[in-house]
Amino acid sequence: MAKTTLAIVGAAGRMGQMLTRLAADMSDVEVVARVDVADGFDAAVPAGTQAVIDFSFHAAAPANAKRAAEIGAAYVLGTTGLSADEQAAVDAASATVPVVQSGNYSLGVNLLVELVKRAAQVLGKDYDVEVVEMHHKHKKDAPSGTAIMLARSAAEGRGVKLEDCVCHGREGIVGERPEGEIAIHALRGGSVVGDHTVMFAGDVERVELVHKAQSREAFAAGAIRAALWAVGRKPGRYAMRDVLAV
Amino acid sequence: MAKTTLAIVGAAGRMGQMLTRLAADMSDVEVVARVDVADGFDAAVPAGTQAVIDFSFHAAAPANAKRAAEIGAAYVLGTTGLSADEQAAVDAASATVPVVQSGNYSLGVNLLVELVKRAAQVLGKDYDVEVVEMHHKHKKDAPSGTAIMLARSAAEGRGVKLEDCVCHGREGIVGERPEGEIAIHALRGGSVVGDHTVMFAGDVERVELVHKAQSREAFAAGAIRAALWAVGRKPGRYAMRDVLAV
Amino acid sequence: MAKTTLAIVGAAGRMGQMLTRLAADMSDVEVVARVDVADGFDAAVPAGTQAVIDFSFHAAAPANAKRAAEIGAAYVLGTTGLSADEQAAVDAASATVPVVQSGNYSLGVNLLVELVKRAAQVLGKDYDVEVVEMHHKHKKDAPSGTAIMLARSAAEGRGVKLEDCVCHGREGIVGERPEGEIAIHALRGGSVVGDHTVMFAGDVERVELVHKAQSREAFAAGAIRAALWAVGRKPGRYAMRDVLAV
Amino acid sequence: MAKTTLAIVGAAGRMGQMLTRLAADMSDVEVVARVDVADGFDAAVPAGTQAVIDFSFHAAAPANAKRAAEIGAAYVLGTTGLSADEQAAVDAASATVPVVQSGNYSLGVNLLVELVKRAAQVLGKDYDVEVVEMHHKHKKDAPSGTAIMLARSAAEGRGVKLEDCVCHGREGIVGERPEGEIAIHALRGGSVVGDHTVMFAGDVERVELVHKAQSREAFAAGAIRAALWAVGRKPGRYAMRDVLAV
Repeated sequence: MAKTTLAIVGAAGRMGQMLTRLAADMSDVEVVARVDVADGFDAAVPAGTQAVIDFSFHAAAPANAKRAAEIGAAYVLGTTGLSADEQAAVDAASATVPVVQSGNYSLGVNLLVELVKRAAQVLGKDYDVEVVEMHHKHKKDAPSGTAIMLARSAAEGRGVKLEDCVCHGREGIVGERPEGEIAIHALRGGSVVGDHTVMFAGDVERVELVHKAQSREAFAAGAIRAALWAVGRKPGRYAMRDVLAV
Repeated sequence: MAKTTLAIVGAAGRMGQMLTRLAADMSDVEVVARVDVADGFDAAVPAGTQAVIDFSFHAAAPANAKRAAEIGAAYVLGTTGLSADEQAAVDAASATVPVVQSGNYSLGVNLLVELVKRAAQVLGKDYDVEVVEMHHKHKKDAPSGTAIMLARSAAEGRGVKLEDCVCHGREGIVGERPEGEIAIHALRGGSVVGDHTVMFAGDVERVELVHKAQSREAFAAGAIRAALWAVGRKPGRYAMRDVLAV
Repeated sequence: MAKTTLAIVGAAGRMGQMLTRLAADMSDVEVVARVDVADGFDAAVPAGTQAVIDFSFHAAAPANAKRAAEIGAAYVLGTTGLSADEQAAVDAASATVPVVQSGNYSLGVNLLVELVKRAAQVLGKDYDVEVVEMHHKHKKDAPSGTAIMLARSAAEGRGVKLEDCVCHGREGIVGERPEGEIAIHALRGGSVVGDHTVMFAGDVERVELVHKAQSREAFAAGAIRAALWAVGRKPGRYAMRDVLAV
Repeated sequence: MAKTTLAIVGAAGRMGQMLTRLAADMSDVEVVARVDVADGFDAAVPAGTQAVIDFSFHAAAPANAKRAAEIGAAYVLGTTGLSADEQAAVDAASATVPVVQSGNYSLGVNLLVELVKRAAQVLGKDYDVEVVEMHHKHKKDAPSGTAIMLARSAAEGRGVKLEDCVCHGREGIVGERPEGEIAIHALRGGSVVGDHTVMFAGDVERVELVHKAQSREAFAAGAIRAALWAVGRKPGRYAMRDVLAV
């Protein structure tokens, strides 16, 4: 069987190295380029590459998406923090090639996003939603993109917009909890890879949906799975829920 | 609006009393009989009753199901531990009237049953399933019916039978965990109303789905909801997943 | 055996009612006065009472403490939110009678306060401390007094002042976690009586110390235990750690 | 400053490799021998070595302890599963040299052992104790040595023997929970390094003390800490609680 050819962009970074290592162990993919600005890496994605996995930097995403579109490669984007212009450039590529974009490629997290939406739909506004995430002490932003993704999914399940009901932490005389509020709490400490809990607290019971990442490999494995899935699809924008549809 | 007429069987018991109390606060139901062998209760379900909620005793279920069928009432059964013969008698009634049967009528538990099935389906056999339940120190049987229901749902999601892969606790030199095993652990202590956790443990991540009952009212409220849903349905056997379908 | 005589101040309130009910079931105490401004309650603590348990209102504490001092009764104060002047009046009474004051009388919480201090002492600053509390949706202030008590205990174990290192929630580009920080997160939802978790997150392991209140009776039972302990002690200020010393 | 000289026995194993790696990064220790039966390792601990850390195999412990006693080295034993005879041989060595023996060298676990004892002492028999541990799917024995150590600590806090009250899992009609029982539950799945929870469940509240190992380095770091502490001590048997005494 012919192997799927991959280019890894941002290959010198932590995720890039992990992608390289994981791909080397797989029988159905071949890494044909490891692209990075650092010394000893490839300068560009070669023509003929079937899929580009980009974990470089938000400012580099437009050029990488354009290159994927030029050569007809599926484009899998894992970098976050894109500006509106950068996002528009990525969207433009999706007119020509399949583009998968996710803030988190782990199988478990994407399953949880789906389950949270369903729970919010069934339980409704009588169950208060609180999202708690914990990450290592070196993480600089709060809350995590995954926590926001989960909170957004709860909002969607209720048919509301997260922006209209989100709350970040509480301190002082804040009064009774407003109906419909969705709160997010960001814990930091030690070397925690990433824990996320979504609580639905009702008057007589609680439901809690939890994800605990034990290793960043979870993210790399999911990104390669997405690349394999995307090759040969119609042009368009895809999310991990499309990749995981059973 | 005409109220739905209910008979509560096992009305002297803890669940029976709670059903009576909850129903009294609702505008759309009327309790027309409180049946129990104890003094001061009704001896039988009167003709014309629209729904019978039975939380009496497994040995009494056949007669109660038969009475519901005779008078054309929906039959909602919450008692567990039925023998094969007793179950057959309940099934017979479902040829004539709608029968809802569940080991646990709480909204949250039934949602969890659905989510567990979906998670098992998506995550597959690479994620080991462990079910942990905790109940108060007075509970005499182990594991709980709800824990078994959750484990069965995980088995269904994988397309296997629980009986072929279930394990109850571990002690000694048990060897490596067999692939596909589903284990159940029964904790007992204090006054815990009922906690259930289903863990999916993979090589790089864990997903945990949790339910915590804070009050037995959760079960009573769901049983009345089931009775209201069942009145007017076609004869047949129904589960809470039918009642909760959104 | 002679029973210990108790006056309950704030007897019409939720805690006051629970104290009355619990005391009625105990063979070694007798409630000789139920004081409240509400109709049908006693107006004052009678002379000869051995212990006064005060769950009334912060503004009433000075007069209640003074009355206890006048009649030589032990004074157990459960009301929180005292101003500096009100606190000074309570302190003044402790020159004459034993005064027990705590923001939380539950056995488990006070044990946890002790364990948290010890853990902070042994683990040191390499283990990041995060305190998470959850209460019902009607609670108006955040974080809970108990969460602050636990965070303070962690600070004491490290030999620092909580005020110098506390943080309430995180949002935005907050940068790496500062060494020595102690963070508190206040969750709200449903009917949760009160959950508290203190996490110590190190580079290779985590320790978590957790308390879950299932009923407010925990607080009432501890207050009566404190009153029994205090009767006959020397005048002075005491905390629950003194009551629980084994 | 002169470095402390170490011999690592069982150097080819997973713990042995980790000890070697960690020791190489430390400025105050020097590994003078890496002993193993595998090719390319040293055959014996050389005279003059100050401390022997033994993570080899239970059957090898007697000879290793004897060698440490001969050369006057502190002996730190991490291997578990010793027979009575093997244990007696280790005990004999402690007449001549300091011997530290623990089933788990992590700082957090040993702290937890202490906290569990204290909690059992304060809370007493009215709080039911349940110990839950989870390890990766490859672990062959159940429950873990650490879980037994924690359960034993709870028993000591109550002044009873674990053997008289321990219970491993529950299934069937087991009846009400016997007063004073201590139960242990062994979960297995995925790649979990080691989670332990000790629950104290009372009528009105629960206390839970939790440890989560994120990496086996926690055990190696503690063993080296024990070796450094033991060098120069009087002969005798020591535990990690002696090493950690603050």
